[in-house]
Amino acid sequence: MTGERTLRDVGEFAVIDRIVSNSQIPVEVAEVGPGDDAAVLAATDGRVVACVDVLVEGRHFRRDWSSAIEVGKRAAAASLSDVNAMGARATSVLVGLVAPADLPLAWVNEMAAGLTQECTQAGAVLAGGDTTEGDAIVISVTALGSLDGRAPITRAGAQPGDRVAVCGRLGWAAAGLAVLGRGFRSPKALVDAHRYPQIDYDAGRRAAVSGARAMIDVSDGLIADLGHIARASGVQIDITTEGNVAFEVPEPMQAAAAAYNVDARGWMLTGGDDHALVAAFPADVDLPEGFVQIGVVREQAGQADESSASVVTVDGSSWDDGSGGPGGFTHFG
Amino acid sequence: MTGERTLRDVGEFAVIDRIVSNSQIPVEVAEVGPGDDAAVLAATDGRVVACVDVLVEGRHFRRDWSSAIEVGKRAAAASLSDVNAMGARATSVLVGLVAPADLPLAWVNEMAAGLTQECTQAGAVLAGGDTTEGDAIVISVTALGSLDGRAPITRAGAQPGDRVAVCGRLGWAAAGLAVLGRGFRSPKALVDAHRYPQIDYDAGRRAAVSGARAMIDVSDGLIADLGHIARASGVQIDITTEGNVAFEVPEPMQAAAAAYNVDARGWMLTGGDDHALVAAFPADVDLPEGFVQIGVVREQAGQADESSASVVTVDGSSWDDGSGGPGGFTHFG
Repeated sequence: MTGERTLRDVGEFAVIDRIVSNSQIPVEVAEVGPGDDAAVLAATDGRVVACVDVLVEGRHFRRDWSSAIEVGKRAAAASLSDVNAMGARATSVLVGLVAPADLPLAWVNEMAAGLTQECTQAGAVLAGGDTTEGDAIVISVTALGSLDGRAPITRAGAQPGDRVAVCGRLGWAAAGLAVLGRGFRSPKALVDAHRYPQIDYDAGRRAAVSGARAMIDVSDGLIADLGHIARASGVQIDITTEGNVAFEVPEPMQAAAAAYNVDARGWMLTGGDDHALVAAFPADVDLPEGFVQIGVVREQAGQADESSASVVTVDGSSWDDGSGGPGGFTHFG
Repeated sequence: MTGERTLRDVGEFAVIDRIVSNSQIPVEVAEVGPGDDAAVLAATDGRVVACVDVLVEGRHFRRDWSSAIEVGKRAAAASLSDVNAMGARATSVLVGLVAPADLPLAWVNEMAAGLTQECTQAGAVLAGGDTTEGDAIVISVTALGSLDGRAPITRAGAQPGDRVAVCGRLGWAAAGLAVLGRGFRSPKALVDAHRYPQIDYDAGRRAAVSGARAMIDVSDGLIADLGHIARASGVQIDITTEGNVAFEVPEPMQAAAAAYNVDARGWMLTGGDDHALVAAFPADVDLPEGFVQIGVVREQAGQADESSASVVTVDGSSWDDGSGGPGGFTHFG
């Protein structure tokens, strides 16, 4: 490691500069860009969509499993996807980085490059940040976005009779994590899906334009996130996996499930981090490009409680993942 | 500790709910508040001011030195102050919290209460957040604000002939940290200043209305932050401490400086975290309420380099803090 420059060698200000200086910000996006106390960003329709997501080393990523670029892409994606799920267009991102002083500068530069790449893919710019020292790497990403005059698509608003449709991959990241956790590096397609998600950043806008009444991105797991919609909307959601193209187990996942003797449907129904969009549409509208129907919205049948099992059914039954709890990923669980 | 509930006991979603549910958000501030994928916030003049600041346990605060409420107030203040320093009014805050699973729930609730208190003081609301598990507490605060149609006051814009003025306390937090670091708990006024700053959240607006041409909040230290203005503006700043009321050493600081045999001016010139505002005003305008002149802006005399010493003078000389480096607090230093 001799000669490898670390954060300690360059000082805080240089690190921040490095992170944001890769970002060329058009004047129509920012009146004041990185490098001042705060950025001043355009919010042309008089509103701003805002959310924050935090990634922690050892919990969300491992440096021996993911490259710095992949970590940066994944950190940005988590927040950018939340903007997408409101039916909005991400415009800018602020990053808060906690890093050990002995972290190689090259890692930070590559992580920043990954952040920038993912932002560019979503049409957003890296507009500011803060770096400070700590024992473990923490990346906090705030994403801001514009609704371009449209109404936001929240978790509430699904109505009985609506069609529920998904856009994007289900369970790939969870399967990839299972592969890595067992000490393997293949199937590579699954491992890559854990490292960073493949997100269609225009899908939220398309859903909004098509009349979506409720929407969320799958970050906790399909059932858990449909549970969020169902509870916020006061409805029940019944999904059908049998004979549904959206639940056909893709080849790499079949291979992994067979090797580990598990049901791949578990990954698809409860795995998060692929950031697929799932939305409720009125029955009489055409689903937008990329969306596939997976279920329907019904009146709430029983007593809704905190569990997703009480408001979401799979092929007519409550989904039992064997844990005794609701489906999906729970932090501090 | 038996029976004390921790984060592990309540699960992630409950923690987020607790943090943001204390915040009542008026409809004119948020179209969508906490609890959805993202918040949708008003940005009535078509722009939004945005910044992020990260606090790390063990580096910015210690739980045995500060209460949870104080930590929450300080975390919010760091970002709210950056909005203030743009001449803007803070409107909303998003918080990203990393916390160990065995952290008492009571600590999180009180920290959230502190965040909310400080937001309320600045006129802002807690609009969203994300909580995740990690070994050390990290609090990332994103503050958003409105310029209400005014131009932002950046670090650039100071012109030769301008008066430089400060609003707020200098060196109190640094002196308080020195007291705590030596194992003492008094003078209490200094210790309290380290625990959370006293900020005039209207001062930025007043400075802007009065015609301030450049502004920053003192978070790295007066000389370091004036160095940021001087370099961004391409000027030199000469400050005068002798006979200046702004540099009269307040009584508790006199006592501590005498006890530790140090020069209290070091705290006042290089201590950060009090978040005083310092701004450059045209010579012919009246300084706004609360601002005291501390110096003048001149043409750059010599060769400016990365050091504040090259662009800021104190009583006619470069300030030497004995470290051989520029004044002020450098992370990873």
